[in-house]
Amino acid sequence: MDKETQRRTRGGRRRQREGDASQPKPQRAVNYRQLKNPFPTMDVFSADEIANMHDTALRTLEELGIKVLLPEARRVFAAGGARVDESTEMVYIGRDMVEAAIGTAPKSIKCRAGARDRDFTLELGSLVFQAGAGAPNATDRERGRRPGSARDYVEYLKLTHHFDVFQMISPQVEPQDIETHLRHYFTTEAQFTHSDKFPFVFARGTPQVMDCFEMTRDFRGLSDAEFQASPHCYTIINTNSPRTLDIPMAQGLIDFARHGQMSIVTPFTLMGAMAPITVAGAITLSHAEALSAITLTQLVNPGAPICYGTFTSNVDMKSGAPAFGTPSHFQASLAAGQLARHIGLPWRSAAGSAANTNDVQAANENQFGLWGCLMSGATVIIHAAGWLEGGLSVSYEKLVTDAEVLNMVAELCAGNRAGPDEIGFGNAISEVDPSGHFFATSQTMERYNTAFYEPVVHDYANFGTWTERGAKDANTRATDVWKAILAEDARPAIDGDRLAQLKAHIAKRTAEGGAPPES
Amino acid sequence: MDKETQRRTRGGRRRQREGDASQPKPQRAVNYRQLKNPFPTMDVFSADEIANMHDTALRTLEELGIKVLLPEARRVFAAGGARVDESTEMVYIGRDMVEAAIGTAPKSIKCRAGARDRDFTLELGSLVFQAGAGAPNATDRERGRRPGSARDYVEYLKLTHHFDVFQMISPQVEPQDIETHLRHYFTTEAQFTHSDKFPFVFARGTPQVMDCFEMTRDFRGLSDAEFQASPHCYTIINTNSPRTLDIPMAQGLIDFARHGQMSIVTPFTLMGAMAPITVAGAITLSHAEALSAITLTQLVNPGAPICYGTFTSNVDMKSGAPAFGTPSHFQASLAAGQLARHIGLPWRSAAGSAANTNDVQAANENQFGLWGCLMSGATVIIHAAGWLEGGLSVSYEKLVTDAEVLNMVAELCAGNRAGPDEIGFGNAISEVDPSGHFFATSQTMERYNTAFYEPVVHDYANFGTWTERGAKDANTRATDVWKAILAEDARPAIDGDRLAQLKAHIAKRTAEGGAPPES
Repeated sequence: MDKETQRRTRGGRRRQREGDASQPKPQRAVNYRQLKNPFPTMDVFSADEIANMHDTALRTLEELGIKVLLPEARRVFAAGGARVDESTEMVYIGRDMVEAAIGTAPKSIKCRAGARDRDFTLELGSLVFQAGAGAPNATDRERGRRPGSARDYVEYLKLTHHFDVFQMISPQVEPQDIETHLRHYFTTEAQFTHSDKFPFVFARGTPQVMDCFEMTRDFRGLSDAEFQASPHCYTIINTNSPRTLDIPMAQGLIDFARHGQMSIVTPFTLMGAMAPITVAGAITLSHAEALSAITLTQLVNPGAPICYGTFTSNVDMKSGAPAFGTPSHFQASLAAGQLARHIGLPWRSAAGSAANTNDVQAANENQFGLWGCLMSGATVIIHAAGWLEGGLSVSYEKLVTDAEVLNMVAELCAGNRAGPDEIGFGNAISEVDPSGHFFATSQTMERYNTAFYEPVVHDYANFGTWTERGAKDANTRATDVWKAILAEDARPAIDGDRLAQLKAHIAKRTAEGGAPPES
Repeated sequence: MDKETQRRTRGGRRRQREGDASQPKPQRAVNYRQLKNPFPTMDVFSADEIANMHDTALRTLEELGIKVLLPEARRVFAAGGARVDESTEMVYIGRDMVEAAIGTAPKSIKCRAGARDRDFTLELGSLVFQAGAGAPNATDRERGRRPGSARDYVEYLKLTHHFDVFQMISPQVEPQDIETHLRHYFTTEAQFTHSDKFPFVFARGTPQVMDCFEMTRDFRGLSDAEFQASPHCYTIINTNSPRTLDIPMAQGLIDFARHGQMSIVTPFTLMGAMAPITVAGAITLSHAEALSAITLTQLVNPGAPICYGTFTSNVDMKSGAPAFGTPSHFQASLAAGQLARHIGLPWRSAAGSAANTNDVQAANENQFGLWGCLMSGATVIIHAAGWLEGGLSVSYEKLVTDAEVLNMVAELCAGNRAGPDEIGFGNAISEVDPSGHFFATSQTMERYNTAFYEPVVHDYANFGTWTERGAKDANTRATDVWKAILAEDARPAIDGDRLAQLKAHIAKRTAEGGAPPES
């Protein structure tokens, strides 16, 4: 046993001062709702290489073109000066058009949630997390893996609402037991009643989107002009790589831009499958596709809020299966971050895991991918928690254990100080004799209740105590955490009249037949 | 299910080309043995704050002094100009002495292993990993947690030798079933026969250290002058915080410096216990203690190889238990990195975990702490894998799962390129039609065998396949991995004569009574 181990043991003694319960305990207060990324950005390519990638993306759009399946979108591109071949549905976009779009796309986007202290701004340097999203299945240790249901949707929403570090509501888990023509009513009402965070709307055709815009406007008590003036909801647009923009995605870009709501445009590509096998090639293709979508929004409504995005990882070369949290995924995030800074737009990246259960692989992949996003200066990090099987399920336990990591990142965003009081020559170092302890220094007494982050699920008990308590691993303890959150069922305050109005709208539209998704 | 999920499923198709087994498969070759840190360094404090911390550390040594229990060390300090109070064993070190020591301490240290391709250089910018070290206990899923034994020591050595990403041999696990006066013979012979990496020697008194130096010199076939000219082994010196240098540690610093071998001097402190509760205070104290030890080595032998170090985390304020991989641990690494750059010396930091089993907490804490070390520009990162319970045990499974993360970090050290071939306009992007795939592009065909990191223990099988294979989590699979490594038992080539000479030395010294540890 070396000294490090000896000191480890010695430090384990319990404090005496816990008995002093008569005094109010100072609360540790760190704002997790509006974060600035404190990490230096990392480059994987040189400035010249990035310029060449950007240039190649522009050349790709000009010379190879992009297939646009929606006739209205082709008309918008043609009216904006693009060469369109209606027989092949190919659109060839000049670099002048793309550069104009980059010029009008806002560099800073103020997102309006249900409460002012839930608002946030998306711009290079800000940092927003989303829980794992878009999964067809949900899983937890008590009930196992099952197709996502309405109950799962609401439970996952309650869990993500609980953690301030998820500043936006994600696309979550698919409530497959709700009929598709009514599903957007269910998800909208759930988001408004269980959370006051910035809500998500799927781009599944104009009728659904317009329904959601109307419900959002009215529930937030906004005029049409107020709604149009700032994004009050958002969607995520995945292009169909390579070089295809399908009907609902193109329609979503148009509808959201037209009404001043935000699209996050993210080609989702796997190196070696739907994208080139190299990081440089995959990100160049992704960049081209994202630029085509950004251009469409700015042709529809110059200045419309649009968030650039990339989500690129690699396939496993033995099986062709998708992999996440890999070195290639990390480097792809870095390259995308360089391109985002090249064009100056806020942007979205993603963590995630290919693991099939909330195990050490799941933790390590997710955190490895997360650091790639953090060091690439991503503005929005999606799938930052809870995402398993490359997105085929979300795990309640993983949501909790990943939230612990995100909380710790949020703590780092707060920085630290080294003034005279913190350095503590007079109030700490000189107060303690050699081989003494700092439990009772002036500095410690002032800070012991608020000095350190208090974990959600991490357990610091020693082996003996931990064993006596049942030897619960973190995954097991995470079950206790999510069950406690669901039992608490904390909800934001809601205006009863607006809720009644929302329910009336939904009842009326349901009676009219709802709005089936379009494709 | 959103597009991201749909693409995920589509990417899962199996490649056809795997059947082409007649051609030799190109091997992926990335050097993990000599790494440069590719990550930008992060500052937690301003340059002024760091200068104030450095100045306060100097003031601490001058005005408050350090207790030095070894008379010889006090004599060295006194001869160097320090004020020594023999009645209290206190040594007051002037800042001129410290600054002179910083001036003579080498900025670059060439460490000589048992093979030239295992040599590495320690300097700011280089990156070296060590497995978790110094634990009294070992644990694995098959045999449970037990006091460390000779068998555990050898097994752990075989496991760490297997992974190139551990460039140094760590203090490992304590072989408690070997008598203490003979233990250094056992560990020396084990290190030389099972590995050709840079070996570790405990500083447990001059007789043991001299034995180890002699065995190392002879086994490596060196003259006294050759041995003295470069470090061929190293020790780790933990001061007894606060402000105490005990007898074996001071003796170790003197012995290693006198013989040109390397000490890594690392105060191991817990904020709120043996160090101030603030990051700034704890690191200032740690800095003072490290500087006192560095000064001692340079008084003994100016230019002696010495590695600066810090290992500071926080206690849990509820229980007083040590915590690792926390935001405070991360910031402490950043601050120590700033001070190391301030004085220009290579330096050691540490990851680690307080978890009691290789679970999600263990993974997340270890990786979180690791990123703190990586972004602080640490030269040597100790406890980078396998360390549980804050160092009270090492886990075979955790060693494997953490090595996966370190391998991926090593992959990032290799960087990437974005030349025309990698961007791939001509050999990839233009070869594929919209909505097509890149499985067969020229670019893919050239690279598919070597494009991506191949995992050790991470599994990319889909949920169905994974379930059919027994639903093994990563921890369970890691057991298979370490058992396979032990079964393979790969060893470096050994000179039979030198091994015989080593065994003869050990037999002779054993007959003479060995060398009990001193304290």
